[in-house]
Order: sequence, then structure tokens, then C-alpha cells
Amino acid sequence: MQSRSAFIISDRTGLTAEALCHSLLSQFPKINFKIETLPFVDTPAKARDTVEKINSTIQIDGSRPLVFATLVDDDIRTLISSSSAVFFDLFDTFIDPLEKELEVESSHSVGKSHGVMDVAQYSARIGAVNYALSTDDGLETSHYGGADVVVVGVSRSGKTPTCLYLSLQFGIYAANYPLTSTELDHTSLPESLSAYGDKVFGLTIDPFRLQQIRQERYPGESYAAAKNCQYEVAQAEAMYRACNIPFVNTTKMSVEEIGAHILHRAGLKRKF
Amino acid sequence: MQSRSAFIISDRTGLTAEALCHSLLSQFPKINFKIETLPFVDTPAKARDTVEKINSTIQIDGSRPLVFATLVDDDIRTLISSSSAVFFDLFDTFIDPLEKELEVESSHSVGKSHGVMDVAQYSARIGAVNYALSTDDGLETSHYGGADVVVVGVSRSGKTPTCLYLSLQFGIYAANYPLTSTELDHTSLPESLSAYGDKVFGLTIDPFRLQQIRQERYPGESYAAAKNCQYEVAQAEAMYRACNIPFVNTTKMSVEEIGAHILHRAGLKRKF
Repeated sequence: MQSRSAFIISDRTGLTAEALCHSLLSQFPKINFKIETLPFVDTPAKARDTVEKINSTIQIDGSRPLVFATLVDDDIRTLISSSSAVFFDLFDTFIDPLEKELEVESSHSVGKSHGVMDVAQYSARIGAVNYALSTDDGLETSHYGGADVVVVGVSRSGKTPTCLYLSLQFGIYAANYPLTSTELDHTSLPESLSAYGDKVFGLTIDPFRLQQIRQERYPGESYAAAKNCQYEVAQAEAMYRACNIPFVNTTKMSVEEIGAHILHRAGLKRKF
Repeated sequence: MQSRSAFIISDRTGLTAEALCHSLLSQFPKINFKIETLPFVDTPAKARDTVEKINSTIQIDGSRPLVFATLVDDDIRTLISSSSAVFFDLFDTFIDPLEKELEVESSHSVGKSHGVMDVAQYSARIGAVNYALSTDDGLETSHYGGADVVVVGVSRSGKTPTCLYLSLQFGIYAANYPLTSTELDHTSLPESLSAYGDKVFGLTIDPFRLQQIRQERYPGESYAAAKNCQYEVAQAEAMYRACNIPFVNTTKMSVEEIGAHILHRAGLKRKF
């Protein structure tokens, strides 16, 4: 298996470069990448140290590392691009054509994307996180009037991480409600949800995967038995269909994917 | 002020394209961008609808919208690029030179980056989120042995969102502990933290900003008074210095930036 070093270099957090780099490299599954992120490379001295680190990798690996960079400062970019690596400039590649199209010079300022938020945005985000925490797992159903979405599902179908993700990343007010075994005996919406039917979004999961997850935490308990998992999932899906609740199967999805599906299908927009 | 429409188009979540697009457009602060994300454009029919939507914007705006795309499927990319928009292919721009450098063809498969995680990764992530929830705000200090980092700070300095972010996005076991007024009367580490000094990371904040945040929730209370905020922040910083605790000022930072600083300075790596 071919092996390659890759560096993600940024003058700020490196999050944007990481996201694109992982997307790109995942298209080469036959190569074993050793990826290192070097954030906050924001002075010429740090840039020179970074170049030294990159160049020393060539001695060890016997091949040129890949460098994925989002660097706004021209001097630092020039320094980094002077290394012997294969240099992919994720940012500057598009800035030139954008300047031409928009007929405006770019501001060349660092850290606008994951940087300072204004006070209103900060409050919106913290408000959403506090809402998700205070309405987690069926708490405070009386506050559902303030929800953008109420995520429902059987225990361990992924509700809590999904709601925390929606609140943190998008400022969405996301409550979550666990469907209990008594509620699952009927296909009608539980009473505490009945007034909020248009906000309810269901999660479902492969019963075998659910069993695995539950067994990990509660081995041997009837809660984690195959038969119970199958019953609960079948009943939850029957309820979603009977009540016209949109739902998504989380079995093969990351939290990011579940979140994107909910936003897309519920027509919700990010708040910041 | 010049105004421009921009579309972010992806065959999956669109998160990668969103991150890079926001980075790029933030470099043009004098232009008012109307940005819309269109995720899950994964069939030719959806691609044709999208092209129609883009082209109709030209009629309304009187200018060509910008399109930022991460599309893996060649047919769908060809369809989208046939629109009259200014097309920036965030993904394909780099795939060709990568194929040449690596001397391997890319797999052209969709959704590898925010897609399916393996079971071990999923468990690591959920484990970290559950850990952050169960050790939030000074709960279960007896579990600090399992922490990667223990975030400390005065009330409302940003501990909870930071720890949830670190757990969700990086699988880091992040506990958080609020410094109480009694503890702030000394510059020694609180007793429940004394065994974990090497894992402690401090948050601090501008006292005026702290006052704003506290006033919003508890107007008029002495907890939110300027004098109290100033005292608490000064004492917390004195403790960090006396105990050699690394710390970061969160006043002008987003949660992403705070998280990146903690990972970087504490030498922590993402777990997935």
C-alpha cells in the first residue's frame, strides 16, 4: 500500500482546510495517508519552522508530502509554498477568479470564517445549546413551543448527538423526545407531542445495529434483546407512517449527515 | 452595496463546500451575498431542477450567481456546470493534479467525508458526547481520570459549548468545572482538580462582556454586577498563572476557535 504524508496548514483553525482535504483524500482509498494539521501558522517564524518540518518529512518518507493550505497572508503563503512539498492552495486558487468576477479586491484578512461572531450570533448559538440541553431526552416538554424541531426515536437511535449538533452548528432549537415502550404500543403520537406534530422529525435505525449499541451498555438486559429492538423499531416506523412524520434511517449516517437531512427535509435554515 | 447570489451545491451534505465558500466570500466584506445551500443534489433530475433555479436567479438579480460545488459524480457535475452561473468546482479543481501526483485514479465515490463512519468511530464519538454531558458543570468530578481535558472558568465563560463541541467534532473527552466564588478567593487549584492539574485548561473572558452575558439572563443580580465580574475574572486569571494552567481569552472567539486553541496547545488529536 502506497503511503503519503499530508499536512493541513492554516493561519487560523485549519477547519476549512481539514474538511476539504479529508473529502479529497477519501477519493484515494488505496493510499495510506498520514495527515497532520498545523493550525495558527500566523508568523514568518512559525512558517519557517513549518517549512523545515515539511522538508524533513521528505528525508524520512522518500516522497514529497502533500500540503493543503488556507493562508490569507501573502508573505506566509510565499514562505510555505517555498517548501519542497506538493502545494495545494485551497484558498488562493479561487480568490483570483473571484476578484475578477466581482471586480473588487479581496480584503486579505485572516480568520473571517471561524472567527469573531457578533454578540447577537453568539447569543443565538448559546441559546440553542442551552435549549437542547434543557429539553434533552424528554425533559421540559412544556417548552416545545419554542422548538424549531422535535426529534423523536427509540432509545439509542441518535437523538441527543443530533440535537446537540443542530444547536451548536446551526443555532437550531432542537428538542428530543424518547419513545417509551408504552407509547410504542400505539401508532398515535404521544400526548406530549400532539400539539407539535408539524415540528416532529423521526429517527429510525436498523434493529440489529440498535441491539449492538444497547448491548454495549446494558449487556444481557431485555431492553437490549433482539426481539425488543425489532419490536420497538417496527412500532416507531409504524407511528411515523401513521402520523405522517418525516423520518430518516441513521444506521449508516454520521451526525453531520443526519443533521443535514433534517435541515433539508424540514426546510430549516442555519441561524448564523 | 453590490449584491450577489451564491449557491452551494453538493451531492451530499454540502458542509465542506459551505465551509470553504464562507471563508472565500468573507474576504469580500463590501459585497452583500445571498447564499443558499442546496444539498443532496444526487440525481440528474435534481441537477436539472437546480440548473433551472440558478438560471432563474439571473433574471431576478440581473447578474450571474456564483456557484460553489463539491460534486463527485461526473454526469451531475456536467449538468450543473451547464448553467449560466460562474462555476467554482471546489473538488474537481484539485482531483486532477492529485491523481497525477499520486499516480492513482480517484474512486469518484460520493460522500466519503461526512458519510458512514465505522462502528468503532461511532462509539468513540457517542462515548465522548455522553462523557461531556455527564461531567458538565462540575458533575461527577470522580470521573476526571477519564478526561482528555478539564476545562475550567467562571460561570458563563463558554465552558459547556466548548466541551460539547470538542466531544462531537473530535471525540475528545472534555469535562468542565465552574470556578465558584469561594474557590476564586484563593489562587490554588480547587481540591477536586488537584489530581488533574496537567489536564486543566482555563477559559477567561473580558469582564465587560461577561457582565453583558450574565445581565441578559440575571438582570440586576449581584452575580451579574460589574464589580463581581471584574473580581471573578481577575481571580481566575491569577489562579491560572499561579498554577501554570494554560488559558485562552474567549471574548472574541467562536466555539470553533476556542476548540482549536485547546487542541493545539494541549497537544490533543482528533479521535476520528
